[in-house]
Parts: sequence; structure tokens; C-alpha cells
Amino acid sequence: MKKTLIALALLSAPALADEGMWMPQQLPDIAKQLKAAGLKLNPKELTQLTEFPMGAIVSLGGCSASFVSPQGLVATNHHCVYNSIAYNSTPENDLLANGFLAKALSDEVAAAPGSRIYVTKAVDNVTDKIIDKATAKLTGQARINAIEANQKALVAACEADEGHRCTVASYYGGLEFYLIKQLEIKDVRLVHAPAEGVGKFGGDTDNWMWPRHTGDYSFYRAYVSPEGKSAEYSEDNVPYQPEFHIKLAKKPLQEGDFVMALGYPGRTNRHRLPSEVLDTFEWSYPNTVSRFKETLDIIAEQTADNKDAELKYASRVAGLNNYMKNRQGMLDSYAESDLLERKQAEHTALKEWVNSNKKNRAAYAADLEAIEALLKKAQDEGRKSYTLDVATPRLLGMAKALYRLSNEQTKPNAERKAGFQERDLPRYRAFVAGLDRSFDVSVEKALDKHFLARYVALPKTERDAQFDAAMGITDNMSTNDLHALIDSWYASTLFTDGKARAALLEQSPEQFAQSSDPFIKAAVAMWDYDREQEAEAEEHAGKVQQAYANYMKAKIAFMKAQGKAVYPDANNTLRVTYGNVTGRDHGTHDGTAWTAFTTLRGIADKATGEGEFNAPQAQLDKIKAKDYGDYYVKSLDSVPVNYLATLDITGGNSGSAVLNDKAELVGLAFDGTLDSIISDWDFNLDNTRSIQVDSRFMLWQMEKVDGADELLRELGVK
Amino acid sequence: MKKTLIALALLSAPALADEGMWMPQQLPDIAKQLKAAGLKLNPKELTQLTEFPMGAIVSLGGCSASFVSPQGLVATNHHCVYNSIAYNSTPENDLLANGFLAKALSDEVAAAPGSRIYVTKAVDNVTDKIIDKATAKLTGQARINAIEANQKALVAACEADEGHRCTVASYYGGLEFYLIKQLEIKDVRLVHAPAEGVGKFGGDTDNWMWPRHTGDYSFYRAYVSPEGKSAEYSEDNVPYQPEFHIKLAKKPLQEGDFVMALGYPGRTNRHRLPSEVLDTFEWSYPNTVSRFKETLDIIAEQTADNKDAELKYASRVAGLNNYMKNRQGMLDSYAESDLLERKQAEHTALKEWVNSNKKNRAAYAADLEAIEALLKKAQDEGRKSYTLDVATPRLLGMAKALYRLSNEQTKPNAERKAGFQERDLPRYRAFVAGLDRSFDVSVEKALDKHFLARYVALPKTERDAQFDAAMGITDNMSTNDLHALIDSWYASTLFTDGKARAALLEQSPEQFAQSSDPFIKAAVAMWDYDREQEAEAEEHAGKVQQAYANYMKAKIAFMKAQGKAVYPDANNTLRVTYGNVTGRDHGTHDGTAWTAFTTLRGIADKATGEGEFNAPQAQLDKIKAKDYGDYYVKSLDSVPVNYLATLDITGGNSGSAVLNDKAELVGLAFDGTLDSIISDWDFNLDNTRSIQVDSRFMLWQMEKVDGADELLRELGVK
Repeated sequence: MKKTLIALALLSAPALADEGMWMPQQLPDIAKQLKAAGLKLNPKELTQLTEFPMGAIVSLGGCSASFVSPQGLVATNHHCVYNSIAYNSTPENDLLANGFLAKALSDEVAAAPGSRIYVTKAVDNVTDKIIDKATAKLTGQARINAIEANQKALVAACEADEGHRCTVASYYGGLEFYLIKQLEIKDVRLVHAPAEGVGKFGGDTDNWMWPRHTGDYSFYRAYVSPEGKSAEYSEDNVPYQPEFHIKLAKKPLQEGDFVMALGYPGRTNRHRLPSEVLDTFEWSYPNTVSRFKETLDIIAEQTADNKDAELKYASRVAGLNNYMKNRQGMLDSYAESDLLERKQAEHTALKEWVNSNKKNRAAYAADLEAIEALLKKAQDEGRKSYTLDVATPRLLGMAKALYRLSNEQTKPNAERKAGFQERDLPRYRAFVAGLDRSFDVSVEKALDKHFLARYVALPKTERDAQFDAAMGITDNMSTNDLHALIDSWYASTLFTDGKARAALLEQSPEQFAQSSDPFIKAAVAMWDYDREQEAEAEEHAGKVQQAYANYMKAKIAFMKAQGKAVYPDANNTLRVTYGNVTGRDHGTHDGTAWTAFTTLRGIADKATGEGEFNAPQAQLDKIKAKDYGDYYVKSLDSVPVNYLATLDITGGNSGSAVLNDKAELVGLAFDGTLDSIISDWDFNLDNTRSIQVDSRFMLWQMEKVDGADELLRELGVK
Repeated sequence: MKKTLIALALLSAPALADEGMWMPQQLPDIAKQLKAAGLKLNPKELTQLTEFPMGAIVSLGGCSASFVSPQGLVATNHHCVYNSIAYNSTPENDLLANGFLAKALSDEVAAAPGSRIYVTKAVDNVTDKIIDKATAKLTGQARINAIEANQKALVAACEADEGHRCTVASYYGGLEFYLIKQLEIKDVRLVHAPAEGVGKFGGDTDNWMWPRHTGDYSFYRAYVSPEGKSAEYSEDNVPYQPEFHIKLAKKPLQEGDFVMALGYPGRTNRHRLPSEVLDTFEWSYPNTVSRFKETLDIIAEQTADNKDAELKYASRVAGLNNYMKNRQGMLDSYAESDLLERKQAEHTALKEWVNSNKKNRAAYAADLEAIEALLKKAQDEGRKSYTLDVATPRLLGMAKALYRLSNEQTKPNAERKAGFQERDLPRYRAFVAGLDRSFDVSVEKALDKHFLARYVALPKTERDAQFDAAMGITDNMSTNDLHALIDSWYASTLFTDGKARAALLEQSPEQFAQSSDPFIKAAVAMWDYDREQEAEAEEHAGKVQQAYANYMKAKIAFMKAQGKAVYPDANNTLRVTYGNVTGRDHGTHDGTAWTAFTTLRGIADKATGEGEFNAPQAQLDKIKAKDYGDYYVKSLDSVPVNYLATLDITGGNSGSAVLNDKAELVGLAFDGTLDSIISDWDFNLDNTRSIQVDSRFMLWQMEKVDGADELLRELGVK
């Protein structure tokens, strides 16, 4: 196939293509490519996290954003602030439906609880501190424990600077580690969001699709104490004054223009081994898709006549559907591609290079062999435990987590397992308090009955004796008996009682041991077994860390030997991707292509006056009147709405500032297209396009439809 | 709007664009444009109807076709031979579903009755004989009668050469007349048609749509007597040996390539006056659309539980739907366009030019004024009689036609009104014999009740007293009375009796006058009134002919003064249109475009295994196996199926040979796209695209799927 041939050519030379989620400090390494693509700035200017423009780029934790005014105004996607709009909505004042605009600072409302703006203050390579000389000599569990101890120490020291959140992020599969220090702004307020008929126009139907006409933008503002420190919400707080902010472009983008997206991509898997590709696409993803399908069917059945339960699971249903569409999209692309063959060919070439001289062979050959065996072992174990993993009751998981927390809390904070420290407590509190909003006994029982039926049907040797004993599963258990057992758990559990559940956060391990709750009893009964399992897993993880890091080291050395820069897989840290505004010579259907821009015309064409395509009448009137104002683009004979670019983005990039060749804001990235979602594994320039909302559309909508004049002045536009 | 601005620029200079359905003899006038578009032949070679390639182009009467072998093999569209496939199908041997392939001459089967192949033998300008000196002095009805008499005389003399069909065609709105002499081949046989899942792939859903994947091709063969003369079907007949035939191109077409279509376009309205545009788009078409909608609703209601009736009306329903989709498409385009404004501006410019000097003013000014008034009068009368025209029972129309025929047959053949001569009798016989296959009393009654109810509700002054008297319509007639009246017509009519109906063809006017059939009685009663009406209409038509011809003369002179060639509107005569293979920068939806070619991939994507997308499994298997043979095109990484070009075609062009720059066959034109159907009135290069089936697809399908090896040898391909 033509496409895969092109892809092959591109993938064998990633640094020459638009592919790449580059760490800012790597940009000088690809200066030539950046210049060829059209960047007018010196790439060195982009390496300084505390300079312009990087200093203006922030994370919302899961989404990206940027400061766009000296008064802490933050631009991001509508879908990134969706919860905050919903949180402030009431039946009488439905902000989701109508949109929200604070006319003055005093009208700005608190974002949803837990909303954060993270301003990266420092990124330091701490590889030598994580894998220090002592750690480097360790293997297995000891190695993992040492790494964790080093991490915790670095984080604790870093977070001693109050108001900051610190993380040690692993790069190149554990080859490098960076300590990232971020100012954690806790007083986040909603400033402006267009109506859902703009910000979510097209809904699920258009999700991951082109042509697209979604006005996926909104504004937060960061607030700090009068002293400029991170602080919880207070009326005394003042807007945060960032050192740098992004200015809006005056000139419209045109097809072919240089663009770059600055943000926090979540996870990619570009450096995976062939065996990981095989396991993922031929076992894991297909199983996930069918499991999610079954889960969705059961939820639909159980909530059919229960509006309350339906609402409780709405978010999960949306998530499962989204995930399923995503994974199925990847599977479809995989079926058409030669990804595995290429991976195998690349890996063979790597091994040949490693074995081609003594020094390389000595440095890498053993680990290259080891990692294959280690991955194989993990895959085998994953398959063995899959049926039970899928069937494990949700409340058992919760019971085990809380019992673990209780145990960890008997130790000094610094010695607790990562994830169970003081800094993690708010997450547990939210988890326990929020259960009621996403939990319905009849649904959970139905799910358990469905998935455990498959588990209990397994021969005894394939089941988990400890789980069976703890939960009361017996050999050759009848369906009736299984159902009676499951019913009995939910009849006697205390997790459905909010107060009792909250009390668990304060209980000692001894109190847990005396609980009559069936899930807690099982958690306690399985404690030793789980610790053994964990130790085994850590032993394995330690070996993997060591071997995988060396595999990556070999790969980087191999690529560098060919003169190619290598970017690390995405890991929720700040990255830069560059490319060009461009459509595609093949569209969704044979005989069609994609143009680079959509326009206001398409909104009017799609608008139905209801549901997912409920464009506001005021907007439609302006479109009909061709009231384009200063935002008209002649080549489009309209105002651009969304555009395609060859930016290399993934989940987490949502809300990323997209800048032109002069680092001016020209839009916000918010999506990719379904047939290129596999780019998380396999970037394909022929197929992969990111979708952006054009800043001109944002401004047009704000001026002509939403009357956000004050905000436009703050943005320096009016 | 951008599109209409571009269109304006193009339309004011038609000879510079791909627009134009040129008479072959006009091609040297546009030699420069043809060369610029890529034609390698000398345009003069295309002017000779009895030379290559024009000598190979034939008409099927309503469709176009071409000889593609020295043995009378004719290529045309599947939809042009559809009736012949259906005619030869039985429930046991469903040729529509399975396709048909004659392995040898003896396997070829007779086409549907009435199938013809017309080979144009001569085209002579007879303007001076139609508007001879005597006629030129006449006006009104006398002029029309003289024109008709001259026409009939020319046709009769021409048809004295047995086996030929002659026509006088009017060009430029009656300014010029050509006598066209065609060999009428009556023994037409079906040679090959792919399965409906290929030839009609996409069905109504894809009709007028892009992307398209229809294998709309089939083959006839022309047979003549052993002496080489036109003859009715006979086993003794032999394949006709045309002097010229088109050879298939070996090289694949590429985007941008020159192409031309040679065929018989039906009707266009490019030279209409602004008032005609206004009347058509703001009165006639909207009314037609709503009337057809009503008609379809009634037919659906009446045939809901009557499979027999449903089948009888299936063809009419398809026709009405097709027509409605077409007209609505035009109305949608009109709403978006500035056609009327441009027409008005052009007409104003013409009038200014006419009035700018004495000579022009003397020659044209009066007729320019006259034609406006005459058209206005006709439009007013059309609106006045519209309610009755729509409501007139179908059988009354039939009764009037047969009574007229009976009357005309009392005169010598040469003196009979055109349309009622000996040469027209087969048409009447078919008309009378075929009524049962498309007529159901309950449907016709329901239609009459619906439309006549609206008519009888009109005040007396707006009704037709003669019609009322003849049919028994009374003032303030109640619905019950109207229904009873209509029921009484159908209870006593003899038209539902096939034998009695056939007998009418032999009856004298006196026998008609004694009939008890309510429709015949009415036809007889209205005879004198109808003749008066006809005389008035002819008086008007004579005036229109004179004034319209002079308007066109003025327009041509005006265009020529600007150095522009002017082509006549389509009139079912042989034309040449040229252009280039090209997609479109805007597709069906905002944010999409159209590529020039579709490929086999799209067939596999669309195939559902049933209904309109029932691609044969054997074809899908070959696509899946990528068994492309010699027909692979590298730039498409597949075999092309359909392609877009800027050819200026309309209904009647179906089956037109599409030739490359060397006059080799590269496909068959078969459709346009819905959003450019208005091109019948307004060619718009930005929008208008013709759709062709690529000859490479035809050959691929014939070789790889249908095993038509012998045919491929005859085509010179294997």
C-alpha cells in the first residue's frame, strides 16, 4: 500500500519529518528542520522554561493551557474546563447550555474542586540521583525500592518550597529521570466559556472526526494570595501575574504555514519493542474492546429504567465509549498497516548494529535479550490473570487500597510507599467521598455476576486459590450459588454507607482486621498474598527497568550513529511539536480529500437546532449576515473555525497553545482524527493530523456573538 | 460569495473556460483553447462527421454511445441498456442481478423492443430552406405552419433513403436549422453487461453524488441485413461494420489530462432571457417540486398494499423522484447563486450594445422588446391554466391525442400535422398497448380527486368553461359530487379494456363522435375549442420564433464583437465538450475536497453485500487480493473506477465516449453532481464536474471478474 510505504520512508528517519514531541532543550538539535518548516525564532529561545514563550505554557493536570494576559488569564479547551462549567451550573442557570462570561473579575467563579494550574518552574536532570552509584549496582526489587526511595527524597525536598508540586518523571523507558518543580495554583476561576453548542459543537458524532467545527476554547484565571503565593480559594486572592504570556496573532494562518504546539502530552509508545506491539494489538486491545462492549451492555441494561443510576454511570459510559472508539480506531489502522513488520525490521537492524562490534555487544547485547524474556514473562502472566483481573469487584479494589493506606500510615511519612504519603491523602478523601456519585449496587452486582461467571467456570488450576478462599468462591460453583454469594456481599457491605466509608480513612489496620465487611475481610485475608505478589512484581519491575533503560540507550546510540535526534515518548511533561497547516490528499472516503480549514459555512450546514449540533441562534444569525468583522480571511471567503496541521500530539495536549513562526497564538489543539489515533504508536505523516480551533474563530465568536469585549481588550485584540 | 464571483468571471467569457457543448464544425473557432487544454489532434479532424473519430459516435435516442470495434460493437452506459437487460431477465435467469456476457455472436440477445442505434450520416444547414424567402415574410401562425411544412418536406425527402431517420433540429432558439440524417439500426443486441452490483453500484443513494464507484458500462452490437442495410431483427442479420471505431487508451489518465466527450446532450438553457430564469426558478420549478411531492405521496398511499399497482408505478415513481432531486438540486444552487443578477446584467449590456448604434438598433431593438412581452404573455397564461393543466386526467389527454390522430389520418400523409404522420404511428401503437403496464384505476382516481379538488375550488371566472362542460364539472361542486363524478368516469371508460383501446387506433372521427367513453366524449366536445387554443398558441409561437431568433442573432453578434465564440444550447444533436480531469477544492461538506479519481478501495469500503451496494463477491475477492493486472495505476496504488472532469455535459450525454488528447477511449461519461445540476442553466467551472467510468476499470472488471476475454480481444486489448 502506498500509505504504508510512505510511512516506512518517514519512520526510518523520524527527525526529518514533523514527527516528534521534543523536550524544549532538544530543539537546537533539530534547528535545521525547524527552520526548514518555517520557524523564524532561534530554537534556543524555546529552550528556556522561565523565558518567553515557554514560561507562558502551563498544565491543568491532564490538559495543557497557556497564559494569554499579564493578569493570569489562561486559555485552554472547552472540554478541559467542562467540569468547572458543569459545577457552576444549576437547572435555573445552565452555564453548559448558555455559556458563561464574567464581565468583571468579581463575576469570575471558582472552578470545580481540585482544579489546578501548574506552572513549571524548573526541570532538572536527576538521573544520577535516581540511579545513583549504589542503586546502579542493585537489581530486581532492591533496585525498584532504591529508585523509589531516591524519588521520594527528591520530591520531598523539592516540595519543601511551599505551594509547589514536584514530580520525578521517567524518560526513555527509565533511562533518564527529571525532577519537575511546578507552582501549584489552587485558586482557579472560570472566566469565560462559550455555549455548549459552540464549545462542544458536534458532540460525540464529530469527536475524532474531520470536517470539524468545534469552538473548543474557554478561559480560566489563576489566582494567588496577595503575596503572590499559591493559596486555596479566597476572596482576598488576586490574579496571578505571570512573567510571560502569549499574544494573539493578527495575521491569519494560511495553508502551509509553520505552527508549533506547546503542551503536556500524556503517553505515547513509539519506542516499544515489537513484542509489545504484538501483545498490545493482537491481544490486549481486542480484549479490551470486547470487555468494554460487554460492560456497556450491562450498564445500559441495568440503568434502562433508572434515570438516577444512568446519571451515575454517564461519565463512565462516556469514557468507555470514548476509549472503545479510540482502541477500535487503532485496531482498524493496525490491520491496514505494516507497523509490526517495520518494528521487527528496525529491531533486527538495532540488534545487528549492537552485535556488529565488541564494545556495543558488551554494552547492550545481554539486556536486549533480557528485556525480550522479561516482557514475555509479564505478558504470559497478564494473560493468566486476565479473567480474574477483569472480574475483580470494584469494592474489593477499594478495600485493598484503603487497608493498604491504613497500613502505610503506621509508618513515618517518608517511609511510606509512593502513592500512600501525606501528599496523596486528598486524592483518597475525594475517592471515598465521591463513590456515591458513580456507584449503583444493581449495576455493580450485574457486572460482577457477568465477569465472575466466566472466572468461576475456569478449572481450579487456572483460578486464584487465595482470591477464591477470601471471597467464598468454590469449585464447580453453580450460577445460583455465585449469584447468591455476590448478592450477600452487597447486602452486608458498609461501602454503600458514606459515613462508614469515610470512617475507613481513619481506621487502624487492627480495626480493619475486625471489620465484618466482606470486601475488607477479603482485603485483610489476602494481605500477605498480595504483598508477595507485589514483591514479585517489583522484582520483575526492577529487572525490566534495568534492561529497558539499556535497550533505550542502545536505540539512542544507534539512532545517533545515523545522525538522528531521538525524542522520548510522551510522559505528561512539557514538549514542543512543530509542523505545518495542511489538509490531506485522502479524506474519510475514497474519492475525497480534506482541506486544511473549515469555515463558518460548515457550522450553518451542520446546525440542526438541537442535540449535538445546537449552534446558538445568535451565532447562526451572524453567519447568515456574513458579519465577519476583522476576522474575515479572503482565501476562505469566511472566518476559519478549525484547521488541520501535522503536529504530533496526543491525549494531554488538549488546550495546547498553537503558535505561528513568530510565537503568536494562532489556536488551541484539541483533537486528532480517528484514522490516525494509532499515531500514539506509529506517527504517519501521510495520515496524522491534529485538529485546532483557530484563534480567529475564538475572537470572532467572542466579539460578534458573546460580546466579550472586556476580555478582548485584556487579550490585546480590541 | 467566492464561488459566484469566480463563476461570474468565467461566465462572462464562456469561450475561455471548459464550458461549451460545441458543434463539431465550430471546433476550429476554439482551436487555441483546445490546444491550451491539451488536445494533440488538429481540431479540424474533429469536424468531419464521416471521418474518425466523429464517425464512430452514435446515438441511442436519449443516450450516447460509440463504436469500439470494426464489428459494430457499441459501448455505452449500463443505465442506457438497463431496459434491455431487464427485458431479457427472468426470475430463473436474472440478468440484472447476475450480469450478462455473450461468449459468441450467437449468444447475443435482442435488446428491448424499440431499441435503436442512430449513426449520423449527414448534418446540413437548412436554415434557408426552413425560413425561406416566403416564410421570412410571414408572422404568427402562418409562419409556424410554413416552417412545419418546410420541415416535413425536408424530412420526407431525406427519409426516402430507406433505413434512415431524419430530423430538422433548431439551434440558437430558432435562428438556425439543420437537417440531420441518421442510419437507423433496428436490430440491436445486448452483448455484455456487468452485474447490477457493478453497473448500478450505489443506486439512488449515490446517484448525482461524489465519491462515486459505479461501473456504468455495457455493450450493444449493431446488426444489419446481409446487404448492410437497416433491418428489423432477423437471424440472417450480420454485425454492422462501421467505417470508424474508437480504440482504447493504453496509458492511464492522470489528474490534469485533457479529455473530451463526444455525444448527444439533450437540453440546456444557457441562452435564456432573465425573465425566463426568473419564471423557471421562482415559479415553475418550485411548483413542479411540490406537485411531484404530492403525486408521489398519493401513489405511495394508493399502492401501499397493492404490489401489482406498486410495480406499475415503479418506473414513474423513480422518474418523479429523480426529477424532483434534480430540480431541488437546481433550486438549492440557485438560492446560493447570483444567476439572475448576472443574466440581468448581461441582458442590459446586450441592450446597451444594440442601442449603441443605428444599424444594430434597427436590426434588433424591436425584437428584443417584443420577445420580453411575448414571454411575459406566455408565462401569465401558463400560470392561469396551471391548476387545470396539473389536474387534467391522464385519460383525457390520451383520448384527445387519439382523436386527433384519427382526424389527421383522414388527410394525405404529407399534410398531416407533424407528430401525427405515418412515421409516428409506431409510437402511438406502443403508447396504447403499453398503458396497462403503468396504469391503475385507483391511483389515477386518487390523483384526479386530489388535483381536481383544487381546480373546482377556483371561482368560475378562473376555471375553463369548456372543460367544465365537457367533463361535467359544476359550480360550487361538493367533494362528494366531484368524487362521484370521477368514479363515474372510470366506471364507464373503455380505456381500461386493452382491445377496445387498441381498436381506437383504427377508428374514424365519426366513430369517435359516437363513443360513450366519458374521456372520448369530452375530447370530441372540446375539439373546436382545442383547435382555437392551438391556433392561438401557434400564432404566439410564430411570433416567439421570429423574435427569439433575432434576440439570439443579436446576442451572437454581441459576443462575436467581443471575440467570443458562441455555442448553441443542447438540442439532442452531436456535440463536443472538452476539459480536464480534475477534482474540486471544495467537496460536499465544508472542510472536504474531491479527488479526481476513485479507486477499487472505495468499492470494498462501500460494499454491504446487499441492496444498492451489492458488489459481487468475486469482485471483492479480486480487490482484496490486489489482483490489478495491467490496470494498476501507481499514483492511485489501485485501479481507477470513476473520475471527475470539467466536461460540460447534460442528460443525453450518458454513454458519451470520453477521449484523451489522442482520441483514444478513456471512459464513458455517465453523471454530474447534484450541486452542479444547475449547469443546465449556468455552467460554473468552480463547481461543475462530470463523472466518468474509467475505461481501465471496465477492462479490469471484464478481465478479472467477468472473464470477458473474447470481448477484450475484440476491443484490441488482449
